[in-house]
Amino acid sequence: MKSARELSDFVPSDPAFQARIQASFAKQGLMSSLGASLVHVAPGMVEIALPASPSVLQQHGFVHAGALAAIADTAAGYAALSLMPPGSGVLTTEFKINLVAPAKGNGVKARGRVVKAGRTLTLAQTEVVAETATGEKLVALLTATLMVIEGREGIAD
Amino acid sequence: MKSARELSDFVPSDPAFQARIQASFAKQGLMSSLGASLVHVAPGMVEIALPASPSVLQQHGFVHAGALAAIADTAAGYAALSLMPPGSGVLTTEFKINLVAPAKGNGVKARGRVVKAGRTLTLAQTEVVAETATGEKLVALLTATLMVIEGREGIAD
Amino acid sequence: MKSARELSDFVPSDPAFQARIQASFAKQGLMSSLGASLVHVAPGMVEIALPASPSVLQQHGFVHAGALAAIADTAAGYAALSLMPPGSGVLTTEFKINLVAPAKGNGVKARGRVVKAGRTLTLAQTEVVAETATGEKLVALLTATLMVIEGREGIAD
Amino acid sequence: MKSARELSDFVPSDPAFQARIQASFAKQGLMSSLGASLVHVAPGMVEIALPASPSVLQQHGFVHAGALAAIADTAAGYAALSLMPPGSGVLTTEFKINLVAPAKGNGVKARGRVVKAGRTLTLAQTEVVAETATGEKLVALLTATLMVIEGREGIAD
Repeated sequence: MKSARELSDFVPSDPAFQARIQASFAKQGLMSSLGASLVHVAPGMVEIALPASPSVLQQHGFVHAGALAAIADTAAGYAALSLMPPGSGVLTTEFKINLVAPAKGNGVKARGRVVKAGRTLTLAQTEVVAETATGEKLVALLTATLMVIEGREGIAD
Repeated sequence: MKSARELSDFVPSDPAFQARIQASFAKQGLMSSLGASLVHVAPGMVEIALPASPSVLQQHGFVHAGALAAIADTAAGYAALSLMPPGSGVLTTEFKINLVAPAKGNGVKARGRVVKAGRTLTLAQTEVVAETATGEKLVALLTATLMVIEGREGIAD
Repeated sequence: MKSARELSDFVPSDPAFQARIQASFAKQGLMSSLGASLVHVAPGMVEIALPASPSVLQQHGFVHAGALAAIADTAAGYAALSLMPPGSGVLTTEFKINLVAPAKGNGVKARGRVVKAGRTLTLAQTEVVAETATGEKLVALLTATLMVIEGREGIAD
Repeated sequence: MKSARELSDFVPSDPAFQARIQASFAKQGLMSSLGASLVHVAPGMVEIALPASPSVLQQHGFVHAGALAAIADTAAGYAALSLMPPGSGVLTTEFKINLVAPAKGNGVKARGRVVKAGRTLTLAQTEVVAETATGEKLVALLTATLMVIEGREGIAD
């Protein structure tokens, strides 16, 4: 049983996709206020890290599902954007996240990958792992639909 | 065609549910760092407001889908908790959010309601509206499954 | 707290939308093999009924989640199509269904409504109720994204 | 970047899990009326095949999203059941399916895998591929939450 992920070899249509994603990420107030950082950008694949600081926790002391969703959605979005043409923008139209274990530990990482890049819509999937004393542990799985936006003022990258 | 929401009249099993939710909300580092506030708590229904400050925006200047998801999930979670017995805790097991319009304006409000409260799992739904010059506009719709946690140390409210 | 559903008054762009949906429904092999029927078509709203015959059950004798999803997705799709221009077609891009109670009883009804009709994407929501001896009971809630397809051969209605 | 799927080596708690799933599948009226068959059962992994007969199509001649969902949900459910203790039953609490391409071709296959098996809830994911002249093509991706049911009359397997 081959994974859908292995069926695709992604070629970016914008050779400057990495610089473009880094510049776009830097403009995101939310990523900055959460303390998230972009750790890896490749064609169809983006990784974001988030330390478990008090400002991203929920009432039981775990990383808040909303914070997990924020970095997982962002990783999915930039994974999709990495394959989109220059000048276009990306918007999330929907995502679902399943939370399979409380996010305890020093921090979390969100790894987004494109599953299928279409002309208008892209499906991406993000795994979120917690970094614990005994290694990485899966805490959440997100699937997202991303839409390419072309020629709309104010919507680029 | 009657809405499922009208089929239920919710009675809280903890008479102190409002104080309990306010205290729990105050412990959420994420809600505080985003600048969110709890504006209404009723049986099976919770409303949260979030001003559109720079620290919650994405790269195009709209409120980030992750910030919308964070307050929408929290509203759904507390709507569910409002009907749970004293001493229990609530965890989100999954949610899906559809983003139907960019969240522009002065701020957003998330209104969570319980659809069905079960013994173990509760289904809740949250509408997120943006406050614009011409009134409220629907920007997102979330459905979430919340799980009641009983007798697990560190998981209350 | 006003529902998003009440924020919209839908006007169909195709005056013949009812005949169009009835003709399209009649072409669906799956609806016919399940025994489903179209019971109500209005602007932005469609209702489908399914008797609980042995051929739609799962292993415990309840109506199968897949059968509930099939009629709920179809109701959402035609609710969306009821507002689309003549000549266009509708395709589901994603849906999520929450199953809140086992579907026991004589049959089920799926009531789909448009939440937000966009240029390219429409969000619709379907409630599925079981018909029991004591009245209707909510068994499932679906949200779906529908895409309008224009000018693609073979994709109409 | 290692997949979550590779993090787990599943050991069934019921040595007779294969016979149990085959017997349960045979009781599903819906699977039989659609023409679906169980082609592979392994610990945490189940494959179901569905020929593209007229009785499973939608109005444009593609396999209906509801039929794809039905076999994908069933594959996810039995993947989860394969790891559950004898005497327990499985129910789907929610699933989401993304439809990434029209399901054209001779038939479709749904391959479900457990992502995380918890005490009460299991997360599983199913890929649905169409069998075309040029090989397999991904048409849909489903994630589902399955609940173990113990000691409830009438709910086994």
